Order: sequence, then structure tokens, then C-alpha cells
Amino acid sequence: MSNKVNISWNECEALITDIFEKAGASRDDAALVADHLTSAEAQGATGHGISRVKSYHAQLVSGKINNSPQVKEHNQGALVELDADCGLAYVAIEKAIALSSEIASQQGACIVSIANSHHAGVLGLYVERLARMGYMALMMANSPAAMAPWGGKKPIFGTNPIAMACPYGEDPLIIDLSLSKVARGKVMRAANEGTDIPEGWGIDANGNHTTDPKAVLEGSMLPAGDMKGAMLALIVEIMTAGLARSHYGFQASSFFHGEGDAPRVAQTLMVFSPSNPTGTFDHIAFLLNEMAKDDGVRIPGQAWREKREAAKRDGINILASDLEVLKSL
Amino acid sequence: MSNKVNISWNECEALITDIFEKAGASRDDAALVADHLTSAEAQGATGHGISRVKSYHAQLVSGKINNSPQVKEHNQGALVELDADCGLAYVAIEKAIALSSEIASQQGACIVSIANSHHAGVLGLYVERLARMGYMALMMANSPAAMAPWGGKKPIFGTNPIAMACPYGEDPLIIDLSLSKVARGKVMRAANEGTDIPEGWGIDANGNHTTDPKAVLEGSMLPAGDMKGAMLALIVEIMTAGLARSHYGFQASSFFHGEGDAPRVAQTLMVFSPSNPTGTFDHIAFLLNEMAKDDGVRIPGQAWREKREAAKRDGINILASDLEVLKSL
Repeated sequence: MSNKVNISWNECEALITDIFEKAGASRDDAALVADHLTSAEAQGATGHGISRVKSYHAQLVSGKINNSPQVKEHNQGALVELDADCGLAYVAIEKAIALSSEIASQQGACIVSIANSHHAGVLGLYVERLARMGYMALMMANSPAAMAPWGGKKPIFGTNPIAMACPYGEDPLIIDLSLSKVARGKVMRAANEGTDIPEGWGIDANGNHTTDPKAVLEGSMLPAGDMKGAMLALIVEIMTAGLARSHYGFQASSFFHGEGDAPRVAQTLMVFSPSNPTGTFDHIAFLLNEMAKDDGVRIPGQAWREKREAAKRDGINILASDLEVLKSL
Repeated sequence: MSNKVNISWNECEALITDIFEKAGASRDDAALVADHLTSAEAQGATGHGISRVKSYHAQLVSGKINNSPQVKEHNQGALVELDADCGLAYVAIEKAIALSSEIASQQGACIVSIANSHHAGVLGLYVERLARMGYMALMMANSPAAMAPWGGKKPIFGTNPIAMACPYGEDPLIIDLSLSKVARGKVMRAANEGTDIPEGWGIDANGNHTTDPKAVLEGSMLPAGDMKGAMLALIVEIMTAGLARSHYGFQASSFFHGEGDAPRVAQTLMVFSPSNPTGTFDHIAFLLNEMAKDDGVRIPGQAWREKREAAKRDGINILASDLEVLKSL
């Protein structure tokens, strides 16, 4: 903890909002992203937290992220196709949440497919909001190539997260997972630190298993659940970039620096409003309560609000180097 | 192959249709199931093929499967809730396919949640039909308890298959997988043959890893992808039985014999019709073609039609013991 410093939630949000506003985003859009990154940091999802500010800033400045996106909408009734216009994903997803919840209220379900989008952060935060509004929600995203199809050597798919939430007592059930065996950030860290990684995390560019993190970064991550995980990553790729006619993982540019064209990745949000919501969510609580009877079982998502409330009260411990970045931009 | 006999597709279908009709199903319903089981057998999915005839028959006779179901429908517009009335799943799913394709044509998407259902067979066969009709389709089912939640000892979830298909040239892409590391049938076979199973397939009733198949059958299968597979199984359980207010895996009775109450499991079918279907399916073909450039990569589902056509031409090699069953019922 020696390289960490404490910053209040409000100061953190204000610093990030100012940075993105100075980089050309509207004050509202900047505040939206600042809230998401601060929440992610507070929950411990640091890979989607403050560490992203510098790279988003570079992309807003270079124009790789459009700082004034005009989100376009094509609404067939139950399937809404949004075009994020190469802006910050958060702006389009905000619109997707508003639209999908309204339509699902009327028709029981709504699917929003978002094209020409960017890094979406923690998918669990979006589905959590919908669960708190009384909906069941499922969300998927694709991301720049990191995993080969099963049997292949060349990365085609991203690590392609899936998140799901539904109301459950005071705090929703929130599931949020990516389809690689481990997060790519762990391999990047090992490469920086010069340490080996366990066998089974990835393959080199020739398709051979390796414990060398640099070889994996030039090769491919391996999916959770081997062939089945690779098939699920393909489902996500099709349900997001396929449906949206947007960039697949192997076409998408990096989320991490300002050079090149926009990544144009995609997200899909599915929202469900059953005819008897009380009965349905009571029935789901019955399942989760049954699971929780087994000592070793943890119901995911239950600690998220608590962590955010603690951070709002006590501040967030962030890397001193991250605070330097926030103050320098 | 010595214990196999050849039977023509038509004879196989006719025998099965007669058996279910004699057991009280309508001729149409019986023919629907006969077609599915024959297709599954012809494709090599023998666990969902002719081996099921005897147990379906026992359940139709005992009333565990309702032989005259009145499928009820509650339609909110984009979410249709069907009640299979404890009949054969095939009957309700047939209605789900008709309804969802019609609604998706008009509104871009439709979700059908099926309650009080039974064993659905090969999910890939349903989504394949929708893909051949020009839709993208995703389907999930829960099944009697076989897997514990992550960290737990008691099976709560089924092996919970997920299937997805979309148009792709002459034959659709069809993905069909279950979320256990291996099929439960493999463990049952090892138990019957008295052989060990590899470590990692399952745990005993105390939650310990074991290579004893009988201990796994009394304990729990392990999910593909460890914790992530267990989380995906929970998503499927909620998206099927949760949404439908139907039986979870741990509540569902066996699909294999006539005793007890109806299993009351659930299926969820999601159908998508993008605004520019040609553009979308061409874009998806671009991804699949890119994948196929890598020698080791196989696009799943491409051989299904071929196998069925071969079986229609040359007959199906089935177990002599299965033919005995077909002729005895």
C-alpha cells in the first residue's frame, strides 16, 4: 500500500470530469465516464478504473474517440440498433439503458445492439442499474483480439465479457465474467515484471503452450473451458459485432493509445420484464437462497454497493502514479 | 459395429411415431418427436436419440408427461411466456418457433420463455431451423441437477445447454454446447463399465475431486471453465427456470423413468431479425471465413445436414438393443 494515496470520491470524479471536458467531451458525457471509472476503481476493478483515464484522454485528443458523438437510433420495436458514432461507449450505453427499460416495460423485452462503440468498462455496472430498476438484464461486449478460435493460432476474438443481473433483496445478483481463462492484464503484468506464467493461460504465435508471457502476448490467450469457452466467445462476437455489423476483435484497434482509427467494437444489451415481476424475482431469490445454504458458495455482486459506499465515505486508495496522471492532464 | 443394425430413416420415424401415438400422444405430436429423435440419432447425438424412446414412453404411459398438453400463451409483445403444460417439450417449442419468428419479423426480436417443460433434445436442431428461415437464434435450457455452484458440494444446476445458430452460406453456423466439463453420459458409461474417469470431471458428495464415476454420480459434475462455467450455468438457470417461474435443476425430477411428478424444467428461445439481414449475415460470413483460414479451425454445424441426408439415403446404424425396444413397445 506504500505507493497508494487516498483521494475522496468527489475529488476523483471531479478531476476525471475536468480532464475529459478539457479534451472536448461535453460536461455531461465527461461526468458519466468519471462516475463509471471511479465506481470501477472503488470496487477493485482497477483494470477498468483510473488507469484508463490517460488512454481515453489521448484518444479524445487525437480524435480516435469522437468527443461529440451523435448517437443514431434505428428502432424496429423490440430490437433497437444504436450507432455510437465512435464516441465514448458510456454515452451510447446510457441511451441504451433508457430505451431498453422503457420498451421492456411495455413489451416484456428489448434488445439493443450498439455499433461503432469503444471500451465499455465494467458491464456489471450497467446490468446492476437495470436490476435496481426492476429488470433482468444480460449484456455482452466484444473487444480487441486476444483469443484464437479453438484449434487456431491467430487471435480473432476478444476476451468478450458477459454480464447478467437481476433484483435480489437489497442488492442485485450481478454476474460479470470474461471468457479468457485469466485476464489479459495478468499476462501483461508478468511480462512487465519478467516472471513466468502458469501453463494453460496462453499459446505462442505457433499455437504451442508456453509459460513465457511475452510469447502469449504475441500469440493468444486461452479460453476458460477450452473448446466450450472458445465457442462462447464466438457466440458473443456474433451477438455483438455480428449483429451490429461492427468490428470483430481481429479488426478492432487498441483501446490503450491514441493512434489509428476508432476500434468500432460492439455491445449488446438485453432487458427482460416478466409479466409477474414479483413472482419471478421471488422465485429467483428462492434459487439464490438455496445456493447460499452451501457454506462455500458466494452470491456474486452482493458486495458492490458496500464497497462504493465505503469509498464515498472513506475515500479511495489509488496508485500515487495514477493521481499524478489525474493532476497532470 | 457388430451390435449395430441398419434401419431406414422412414421406418425409424414410423416406429417411434406409432409408439408415442399408442402411448396417448396425438399423431402430430408423436411425429414431431420421432423426427427430432431420428435426426439426433442420425447426427450422432445418440444421447438425445433413440435411447430416449423407452423413457419417454414410460412417462407418457404413467402421466409424468402429459400426452394431451394445452400449451398456454401470455404474450407481452416481445416476451412471450408459454406454459408447456407438462407435455413433451417438442410441442411447446414448435409453437415457440412459429411465434418467435413471426414476432421477430415484425419487431426485430422476440424472446419465448417456456415453463413446465420436459427434455428438449438437441437445442441445435431448433436454432438451425430458425437460421434456415433467415434468423439468428439463441436458445438455453435447464435440466435436472448435475452440477454444484462454484465452491459448493450439492448439485443445483443442470448441465444447462446453450445453442446458437445463424445463416451462413448453404448450411448455418450451429453452436451447441453444455456447461459441464464432459457429458454426464460419459460418467454413467464409466460407472456401468466399472472404469475410472479422469480427475477434473467431477467431485464426490463431500466436494472432493475423485476418479470414481459412481462417487461423481452421487456428488457433482464439474463445470467447463471452473468458476466461469458455474456462473454461466447460473445465468442459464435464471434465464430459463427463473424467468419462467419453473423448476430449477435441483427441483426437477428425472427425464429417464416414469415415476414421480413432472420435471417442469424450462427453455428460453431468443430470435433476432436485424434491419439489414443480408448485410448482417454477410458480415458474419466474413468472420467465419476469416476463422476458417486457420487450418485447425472447424466451423461447427456444417456437417449436420450432410449426415441427415446420408441417413435418409443409406439408413441409420442403431444399436440392435434399441431396435428391439422400438419393436417391443
